[in-house]
Amino acid sequence: MKNSALFTDFYSLTMAQGYWKRGMNQRAVFEVIFRRQPFGGGFSIFAGLGTLVNELSSFAFSAEDLEYLKSLGLFEMDFLEYLRSFRFGGSLWAVDEGIVIFPQEPILRIDGSLIECQIIEGLVLNIINFQSLVATKTARVYLASGMGQLMEFGLRRAQGFDGALSASRAAYIGGAAGTSNVLAGKKFGIPVMGTMAHSWVMAFSGEEAAFQAYADLYPDNSVFLIDTYDTLRSGIVNAIKVGKRLAARGKNFGVRLDSGDIQYLSVEVRKALDEAGLPKATIAVSNDLDEYIIQALTDAKAPVNSWGVGTQMVTGRPEAAFTGVYKLAARENEDGILEASMKLSDNPEKTTNPGVKQVWRIRDHKNMFVADIMTLDDKEKNDLIEKGKDYTFWHPQTDYRHFSHTLAGNAEALLKKILEKGKALYPEPSLKTIKLRAVENLKSLDQSYKRILNPHIYKVSISTRLRSLKLELIKSFLGDLSSLTI
Amino acid sequence: MKNSALFTDFYSLTMAQGYWKRGMNQRAVFEVIFRRQPFGGGFSIFAGLGTLVNELSSFAFSAEDLEYLKSLGLFEMDFLEYLRSFRFGGSLWAVDEGIVIFPQEPILRIDGSLIECQIIEGLVLNIINFQSLVATKTARVYLASGMGQLMEFGLRRAQGFDGALSASRAAYIGGAAGTSNVLAGKKFGIPVMGTMAHSWVMAFSGEEAAFQAYADLYPDNSVFLIDTYDTLRSGIVNAIKVGKRLAARGKNFGVRLDSGDIQYLSVEVRKALDEAGLPKATIAVSNDLDEYIIQALTDAKAPVNSWGVGTQMVTGRPEAAFTGVYKLAARENEDGILEASMKLSDNPEKTTNPGVKQVWRIRDHKNMFVADIMTLDDKEKNDLIEKGKDYTFWHPQTDYRHFSHTLAGNAEALLKKILEKGKALYPEPSLKTIKLRAVENLKSLDQSYKRILNPHIYKVSISTRLRSLKLELIKSFLGDLSSLTI
Repeated sequence: MKNSALFTDFYSLTMAQGYWKRGMNQRAVFEVIFRRQPFGGGFSIFAGLGTLVNELSSFAFSAEDLEYLKSLGLFEMDFLEYLRSFRFGGSLWAVDEGIVIFPQEPILRIDGSLIECQIIEGLVLNIINFQSLVATKTARVYLASGMGQLMEFGLRRAQGFDGALSASRAAYIGGAAGTSNVLAGKKFGIPVMGTMAHSWVMAFSGEEAAFQAYADLYPDNSVFLIDTYDTLRSGIVNAIKVGKRLAARGKNFGVRLDSGDIQYLSVEVRKALDEAGLPKATIAVSNDLDEYIIQALTDAKAPVNSWGVGTQMVTGRPEAAFTGVYKLAARENEDGILEASMKLSDNPEKTTNPGVKQVWRIRDHKNMFVADIMTLDDKEKNDLIEKGKDYTFWHPQTDYRHFSHTLAGNAEALLKKILEKGKALYPEPSLKTIKLRAVENLKSLDQSYKRILNPHIYKVSISTRLRSLKLELIKSFLGDLSSLTI
Repeated sequence: MKNSALFTDFYSLTMAQGYWKRGMNQRAVFEVIFRRQPFGGGFSIFAGLGTLVNELSSFAFSAEDLEYLKSLGLFEMDFLEYLRSFRFGGSLWAVDEGIVIFPQEPILRIDGSLIECQIIEGLVLNIINFQSLVATKTARVYLASGMGQLMEFGLRRAQGFDGALSASRAAYIGGAAGTSNVLAGKKFGIPVMGTMAHSWVMAFSGEEAAFQAYADLYPDNSVFLIDTYDTLRSGIVNAIKVGKRLAARGKNFGVRLDSGDIQYLSVEVRKALDEAGLPKATIAVSNDLDEYIIQALTDAKAPVNSWGVGTQMVTGRPEAAFTGVYKLAARENEDGILEASMKLSDNPEKTTNPGVKQVWRIRDHKNMFVADIMTLDDKEKNDLIEKGKDYTFWHPQTDYRHFSHTLAGNAEALLKKILEKGKALYPEPSLKTIKLRAVENLKSLDQSYKRILNPHIYKVSISTRLRSLKLELIKSFLGDLSSLTI
């Protein structure tokens, strides 16, 4: 990725010039929230933070960038000079990469000057939205496979160069054991995997010759693609011939199915392998798989050892986008005091929760997730979540719904400070650490939230004080509005 | 984009080493075809060629790349030395960027050594699949808007950095007038566009103050976002106040609707603007628009002047991927003769058409597209398509369906040679030229193929000679298979 600060929406720059000209570069706090779970699911996996931190650290305008902006005829020289020295110098708070996240909660908080917050908006959303989408989709596929061996094969159908690379990273976090993308292997240290293409089989005079040639080259890594001509009448027959020779050398092998009825073919192929005395030979399957097909196959006990998933996983099909948005939570007023902000909207679900917030995740005595609660992140925060204390959880959008809960297990503050004055406070965790965190999180989430269809809705609530602030602000806006005539 | 040749599937490299070790680096011809129209539509727009040509010219392995491959323990030193000097030195044939394309037809042909063809597969498919997807989706949106003013606002929901940049390029080809992505503006010369964000409105003490500040700064480019608090009770009222002051200075302005019922609100807002004596003020709309919503709004004559479309367009939702595949069409045999190849499959639609092919597009006397026909691209090709000659068009998959047509208008050979020995034969056309070509193509395609729902299926056929070759090859394979016992 090239770190040009021109990777921003045009209006961010026109607004930034406006703030700059009016001297309105006071402190502002923005939050990233998302509006609904993708894929009709019950959870999402947060991903992209490591990439974002790297990109923010080098986000700058080059001389060439400034020449381009000048050529647009809308920007003043002094403002362009200001941009020349622009760097992100604010604070970034984020939830840990790899954890499960839920709608309405802040997953990132950007605390900086109004201008810097505005200019990085597009970058922040682009990275977080895409990687969270793919990590979430992958976790669904991974769960459907019974947390089995999952290979990400999406390079050729991914949305551009970085669409492929970032997808490999996010899919690894979400549960993929490896990727076919060699550059992602190098860049992120993800294991690289692959079998053979139809073109390999077609490049030889016959199927058996093609399999034998591969076995001679890679006796420890042979997976034969058996559907180039006819899976049962030709492919498996030739795979068994060559596989027996490998077995005689003490080597195992596998076959891959890439078309036809996977359920039927996997059973027949398993039978053929077992009858040939090759019970250890593995079966990999591919062909536009998604979590629904894989769930059906695992439910039917199809004898599949590994799953190659491409398109559906790397594009997060059919959603294709995560609904993360970037909203002003608070800004400094003329007296230098940070004031809570909120956005009303003609669509009620677009109305935000005001103020600078923290999110607490409550676990029960078995360490399973119970509910999340958003509180105002002020001096009182440490008093708010205390073991043995009775606490009221309010529905974030409906006025009257609430429940009471006495804290029995642990409560964790999810938002942690990652960058201070633009500098990272900690070294980035390894991708492996993030991947293990995702597994632990998925295990701490009750099965009812992980169902592929119609999952239970995890409770996300707001504190009594946050609710009071919200109602107060709505009242003051509606008061303003009722005085308008139209 | 960084041009690492590691941007390839792992199996491409393991197969390449296999070919290299066995001295199997003979000439091979691969074709890119796609299997079905995305979005249930009747056409696609070909895009990505310019990007592909640029990337191929610098596709190479760095010393660091080779170190990484060495670390995997599967590649021999001599093969890695071979990769060190690897460059694409073959020929590339392609249809013109921006034209309409149909399933089963070759849209690219790569003619080179087996190894180079194999290594570039992932790169070719990644670029062509994504840009063609977005250009096609955009053309659908553009047609739904009545070829109106369309702005691409997708940066924040695009699939990664290049997912955004390449999408801006492809959307411009498919019909967008501009983009919000400033880097895409700089890189591709696409007009940059934008309005204002809710955060601008919220950063001021009130909505009118926010609008006025913007109008003072950009009197020639003011589009006020009017839904931050309440579109009809507050937003339009304040926009009119500020707009009247602009009108008094001889300046026009616009408003943007980003939530609520666009149909209802656009009519009410138009009424308010007209009643205020501001008939020239424009209405832009956004909020997760797609071709279906826009078609409904234009059918209902909603008074909308411009359309801001993001997510749906830049991700090609809900398809999210184009079905382009890369298939071996011919290879040199041991006697140095190029032999037609084809892939059978348990899924009949995955069976390919054999041989090195050309595609001819037939126009009628009004210059409208009639049908396409694939022929073998050999010495006889120039005799095949001749004006006034009666010609038989065979269905590419069904044996018995065919029709006869006497050529009245023009027949164009769609595949043109772009690269020879890895070098470009012509300068790349400008993006503007490609965009105009797309418009001309859409106008030459009958309305029945452009319907959003249930379009007519454009005729793609094969020549009598190609059909004979195909049947012959199927027969020879099935002959082989019938001799197998299982």
